[in-house]
Amino acid sequence: HNTPVKNHTYSNRGMSLEEELNETNAYYTEHSIACIHKKPVPIQIVKVDYPQRSAAVIKEAYFKQPSTTDYNGVYKGRYIDFEAKETQNKTSFPLQNIHPHQIQHIKQVLAHDGIAFFIIKFAHHDETYFLKGQDIVQFWTRHEEGGRKSITKQEIELCGHRIQSGLHPRIDYIRILDMLYFS
Amino acid sequence: HNTPVKNHTYSNRGMSLEEELNETNAYYTEHSIACIHKKPVPIQIVKVDYPQRSAAVIKEAYFKQPSTTDYNGVYKGRYIDFEAKETQNKTSFPLQNIHPHQIQHIKQVLAHDGIAFFIIKFAHHDETYFLKGQDIVQFWTRHEEGGRKSITKQEIELCGHRIQSGLHPRIDYIRILDMLYFS
Ligand SMILES: [Mg+2]
Ligand SMILES: [Mg+2]
Repeated sequence: HNTPVKNHTYSNRGMSLEEELNETNAYYTEHSIACIHKKPVPIQIVKVDYPQRSAAVIKEAYFKQPSTTDYNGVYKGRYIDFEAKETQNKTSFPLQNIHPHQIQHIKQVLAHDGIAFFIIKFAHHDETYFLKGQDIVQFWTRHEEGGRKSITKQEIELCGHRIQSGLHPRIDYIRILDMLYFS
Repeated sequence: HNTPVKNHTYSNRGMSLEEELNETNAYYTEHSIACIHKKPVPIQIVKVDYPQRSAAVIKEAYFKQPSTTDYNGVYKGRYIDFEAKETQNKTSFPLQNIHPHQIQHIKQVLAHDGIAFFIIKFAHHDETYFLKGQDIVQFWTRHEEGGRKSITKQEIELCGHRIQSGLHPRIDYIRILDMLYFS
């Protein structure tokens, strides 16, 4: 696919990371590059009304803790699975943003030879990084073993890969996949 | 993994196909065979209350038409994607059970070299079949071109693969994947 416009003034016009990724995935679908979707938010439904002659209405429901990650799909036959996180923090990414279930899930995906990663956006700097699942697991383990409760931005810069913001697609993470897994 | 108990008297004790598949996927996860999950049901949230000191309550929401399929995940590195359908019909599977979006999605998954299929259960006969995405697309195209609005049970028997019911796991569709894609 085409090289994205490398000018990050395009990004961050009030779009959340999720909106940017949804646009990116729509771009990948339209251009037959990949088939990757956001999973619906898991909901615990308690009460549903079935009015006559109209659609069922959910009257009481609760947000459930996500047991997996935000996005998954297929690229060049491989299973792709990632979590997107945005932080307002300027110097580090706090690990409390991650649910233990999600680490469990990342480990399972890796065990079955899937491609798992995080996309982390430092909103203040308007910088977005790709971080391999293996690295996230390592930082998580460091914390479990008594180490720091966050990943420093510098560590992410060193271990991860900056994703340049473009216009179409906005966050071209497939370029990073190509470089890391398909070359 | 172990050969399942091949005795279909185990199945159909009031379990829906979805429940059987959820148990099967839990078995695959526990035994590190595969990582495949049901996607949450897509919901359009309209109104949410945020009571003080307790969890957010969804007060109005609607079921959205699913744009993809029920299940996806990873097995031996490959992307796995399927839709599960149960029919009370004795002699055929009506294609009106399938949303056009789902066919679109199956085509996209196949285009990216993912493994896409349907699991179809004839509840009356307590028989469950695996049908490749390519075959579903062909039967759908036959219908679009003026052909019959259903797939006959006999066609499914011929094109598809019967999945024997077991106890652990209940619906061992990975055996079919092994035979078709990994041998
Ligand atoms: Mg997220
Ligand atoms: Mg279904």
